[in-house]
Amino acid sequence: MAEKSILSIDLGGTNLKIGLLDSRYRIRDKEILSTKSQNSKEGLISAIIYSAGKIISRNRLKHSDIIGLGLGLPGPIDVEKGLVHFFPNIPGWKEVRLRAILEKKLRLPVVLDNDANLMCLAEYRLGAAKGSVNAVCVTLGTGVGAGLIINGTLYRAKTFAAGEIGHIPINVNGPKCNCGGVACLEAYIGNRRIEELAVKIFKKRITLEETSVLAKRKDKRALQLWNQVGKNLGTALVGVVNLLNPDCIVIGGGVAKAGKVLLDRVREVVEKQAMPIQARHVKILSAKLGSDAGLIGAAILAKEGI
Amino acid sequence: MAEKSILSIDLGGTNLKIGLLDSRYRIRDKEILSTKSQNSKEGLISAIIYSAGKIISRNRLKHSDIIGLGLGLPGPIDVEKGLVHFFPNIPGWKEVRLRAILEKKLRLPVVLDNDANLMCLAEYRLGAAKGSVNAVCVTLGTGVGAGLIINGTLYRAKTFAAGEIGHIPINVNGPKCNCGGVACLEAYIGNRRIEELAVKIFKKRITLEETSVLAKRKDKRALQLWNQVGKNLGTALVGVVNLLNPDCIVIGGGVAKAGKVLLDRVREVVEKQAMPIQARHVKILSAKLGSDAGLIGAAILAKEGI
Repeated sequence: MAEKSILSIDLGGTNLKIGLLDSRYRIRDKEILSTKSQNSKEGLISAIIYSAGKIISRNRLKHSDIIGLGLGLPGPIDVEKGLVHFFPNIPGWKEVRLRAILEKKLRLPVVLDNDANLMCLAEYRLGAAKGSVNAVCVTLGTGVGAGLIINGTLYRAKTFAAGEIGHIPINVNGPKCNCGGVACLEAYIGNRRIEELAVKIFKKRITLEETSVLAKRKDKRALQLWNQVGKNLGTALVGVVNLLNPDCIVIGGGVAKAGKVLLDRVREVVEKQAMPIQARHVKILSAKLGSDAGLIGAAILAKEGI
Repeated sequence: MAEKSILSIDLGGTNLKIGLLDSRYRIRDKEILSTKSQNSKEGLISAIIYSAGKIISRNRLKHSDIIGLGLGLPGPIDVEKGLVHFFPNIPGWKEVRLRAILEKKLRLPVVLDNDANLMCLAEYRLGAAKGSVNAVCVTLGTGVGAGLIINGTLYRAKTFAAGEIGHIPINVNGPKCNCGGVACLEAYIGNRRIEELAVKIFKKRITLEETSVLAKRKDKRALQLWNQVGKNLGTALVGVVNLLNPDCIVIGGGVAKAGKVLLDRVREVVEKQAMPIQARHVKILSAKLGSDAGLIGAAILAKEGI
């Protein structure tokens, strides 16, 4: 019998990644579609079905060769019901039974979860958090999310909404956040806020990638920018470290490309300000699986179940 | 065979409570000693041994009638090793193998844990958090602590230091905390800080009990005081609710006597500022077991093990 494959999708605000993985979670084929043109819910669902079909036929697979499809999605999900509550950054989705829709169209078992949870699952099983029992995996991007590993399993809680580290307030008073909260971490270090801060510091528009490159060259303004981001992220993580006493915190996502300067600042804040037992115990690490973590996590879920 | 009993101790900064409980965790005898005069480690250990002996002889118990002794202690504990790391508010304790010392003297099985963990265990098994799967139990006092129930068990983490909700920063910049942190919740709503705030508002020294009574009579200054405490506690809890998506948060400890005004303000902040799925799901409740929660939790631990 030939080895079975897993289909896996990572949906973001700007693109849809689809991958074909073997049963040891190695990526065998991958395709990236822009989702910016798909501005309706129906358009996006069609794009998912189309791209799945394309990967299946391109690899000459029969349905019986495929274990299932796992999807990582940018918003709160009812994992048991296969239901999308909504997407904060993609309009038009409200209480959509996406699993049922896709299972009918694709005639494959489908599982859904939040993208931060799946990134965390991947880093825990195959990446930087491997060997930990309690871990927090943070993804930095337009949104700031996290997945939690507690006692060796992904912790989702009863309404599947655990891990929203971006919505820990870091000030009693502060800017309003999209989530309805006040002074949430994300209202300080979501990509758009970092871009705004960069405009203030550099007195011109500049991409985060450019500031990351400059930071590596020790440009003062870039260091100022990323030190500020690190201080805010570090402050929220001090709370998480004191509350959960995790073995490690893994930091990934696009913004993490700022790399050493950001990580060093976060480590410094946690070392100085978290309680001694927790601070000594926790390791703060870069994510290992890069932008493939979402695809890998979705494949793990598709194979091993929720 | 007669029913077996459990000895249980709740050690605080100001007194030592010792209880005798039956195997259904009902308190059959209780004694409270002031610990203010016991200013040495040895003095406090002698007081523990003396009071245990007193309860045993007063109730005409044989050693074989007693399942063991559980102790709730006001600081970080290595539960596996039976080791006290230190007590933030009692000097002279550093890496003390208290379990071994007491087992030798008392010839009884001894278990130790942090007092906030045991209060949480008691409220989860017999109090306000009963029936929850994921719960956070907060104790307000000189220190601000919490215990976490995750997936139906007490979550301690690898170095047993989880639950330090009092040391979640609620501001990026702010007052230094005893723990070495900055702008920790406890640096705003630990008893001493509330007393200082009360002096400012009332322009005179006033006890927290008095302000609680006044708040119930709708005294404006007392309401201002407890609203401020509730806002700060609520802000930290918004972060906890968004991160852990718990089924309930139980609030106990002396300060919780302010009662409805405090709880209402905390509920209001969480309802308004936490994310909708988490905010709708979480119940914010008063502790049910009052000042006996610590004794009951220590007895549960002594009977059921760590």
